[in-house]
Amino acid sequence: MKKEYSVGIDIGGTTTKFGIVTHAGEIIIQDRIPSNDHEDIANFIQQLADKLIPMIEKVGGPKNIKGIGIGAPNGNFNSGTIEYAPNLRWKGIIPLTKLISEKFNLPSKLTNDANAAAMGEKLYGCTKDINHFITITLGTGVGSGIVIDGNIVVGHDGFAGELGHTIIRPGGRLHNKTGLRGSLEAYASASGVCQTAIELLDQQPEKTSLLREIDKNNLTSEIIFNCAAKGDEIAKEVYEFTGQILGESIANFVLFSSPEVIVLFGGVTKAGDLLLNSIRKHMEANLLPIFQNKIKIMLSQLNESDAAILGASALIS
Amino acid sequence: MKKEYSVGIDIGGTTTKFGIVTHAGEIIIQDRIPSNDHEDIANFIQQLADKLIPMIEKVGGPKNIKGIGIGAPNGNFNSGTIEYAPNLRWKGIIPLTKLISEKFNLPSKLTNDANAAAMGEKLYGCTKDINHFITITLGTGVGSGIVIDGNIVVGHDGFAGELGHTIIRPGGRLHNKTGLRGSLEAYASASGVCQTAIELLDQQPEKTSLLREIDKNNLTSEIIFNCAAKGDEIAKEVYEFTGQILGESIANFVLFSSPEVIVLFGGVTKAGDLLLNSIRKHMEANLLPIFQNKIKIMLSQLNESDAAILGASALIS
Repeated sequence: MKKEYSVGIDIGGTTTKFGIVTHAGEIIIQDRIPSNDHEDIANFIQQLADKLIPMIEKVGGPKNIKGIGIGAPNGNFNSGTIEYAPNLRWKGIIPLTKLISEKFNLPSKLTNDANAAAMGEKLYGCTKDINHFITITLGTGVGSGIVIDGNIVVGHDGFAGELGHTIIRPGGRLHNKTGLRGSLEAYASASGVCQTAIELLDQQPEKTSLLREIDKNNLTSEIIFNCAAKGDEIAKEVYEFTGQILGESIANFVLFSSPEVIVLFGGVTKAGDLLLNSIRKHMEANLLPIFQNKIKIMLSQLNESDAAILGASALIS
Repeated sequence: MKKEYSVGIDIGGTTTKFGIVTHAGEIIIQDRIPSNDHEDIANFIQQLADKLIPMIEKVGGPKNIKGIGIGAPNGNFNSGTIEYAPNLRWKGIIPLTKLISEKFNLPSKLTNDANAAAMGEKLYGCTKDINHFITITLGTGVGSGIVIDGNIVVGHDGFAGELGHTIIRPGGRLHNKTGLRGSLEAYASASGVCQTAIELLDQQPEKTSLLREIDKNNLTSEIIFNCAAKGDEIAKEVYEFTGQILGESIANFVLFSSPEVIVLFGGVTKAGDLLLNSIRKHMEANLLPIFQNKIKIMLSQLNESDAAILGASALIS
């Protein structure tokens, strides 16, 4: 009997989402678990199995499943390992596809989470007919998937496409998990956006702001956006600055691979035009004339968690 | 009869070099003309033909030539045009391959000069068996050629690989020709190295230096290197800083495409280990652990002017 389904798993810094996907790219069942309940990867896989095995049984058991595709931070396509992922609790080198294949008795493949999202975008999203694009996920971390000539760039060792860790402010803000200073992720991740708000509030004590009514520990990028939507000056400034950092970074990426489209995903993009207008302004200002007014900055139209699951499942063909 | 030869043409800001190249990558005849004698491209091509046609006749005429490969600033592989090259006299969009093919009655291909150098390195240089590498030329300008999966990256519009114009010090040193601030080229080109020396001399007026004996207008990157070799502290500091800028930039490039090797070309690299050690130190310091102690930084072993001709000829296969 022909195997009808594949499994897609998206391991994010906070949440792991997974689903059963049809040939046609439809997710027929999906669920999620926290990514960081367990320090021991074996316990995480057991927690996953407790939910995923019943889902697999619902579609007729492993005999109907082609395999399991996984996207994860620092996921290495070549070796099937997660290596030193700064946003995950499991340290060192984790032989993920080996552990998953043993647990579920199914073949499995791994790539980094942002590459999986880029594959989802290419197969089912706004870059179906585009062969040169970069996806950037703005969530707990800042991930990226680079497509050149229609293929995901994985590099000589399987680790290419870590644009969130490129340095855009040398000597700048410390990234606690990597120890690097001034990386894109230190500014444009959800927590980076919050830190920008805290810094701007501290730097301008004379300025009133709705953000002052919120405990610093409870700030989220969404709260800041909502305040900006109400006209709060400091909240607007937060997204103007986040857009500047992103625009300058994207200009550098454009000079590398000359993509036609940049696709943005993730919670931070809920700020919409407030963020996009600043990105476009600062990107254009840092481009050579031969690149100006050519590059489209788009928001992914895929449901965010769907895209990640679909992209991961696309690893299994 | 099998066509034995190809022609390589390297159009530089000052000089155009060209030669007849064998299958084995040997330049059997070569010559040069000024690039900027004529405002009209047709006159330039006639000047080229006056020297190149007799060379072609020497090897048996066009029937023995597979084609003509050309490297030029702002050369577009997709369209065969040179577009708005700031260092050339021909303005606007020049349909170079069309003009060359008509004149010589041979097929021709064009790419930017740094991409041509990367192809030369892949075919005849130190990256023969390497499929993921980046070449960086450190000369009058800073050019780059990016190879992924064995292919030159040209991007959706043919202009990819302009790493010299990536911003590494936002708001930093002004680049007179582009108007951008803080680009790699503003620091790591030959004139960027000289400007660093002038700035360091001004910032440390109390410090003696051999460089103070030289008129600022006569400074060259080679003079600075020679002073450093004699132990001059400021001259050494110039290359330490140039290496820092390059190392930080290269770390960003590694995060993009995860290359196995970075190959450096050009006059500024004559500083050798003085520059390389600083590049390596600052590159490693800005890499995630998954990339550390993996990337080789090498100096091209090809003769510089040969490399440009060989690389251009490599466009014809």
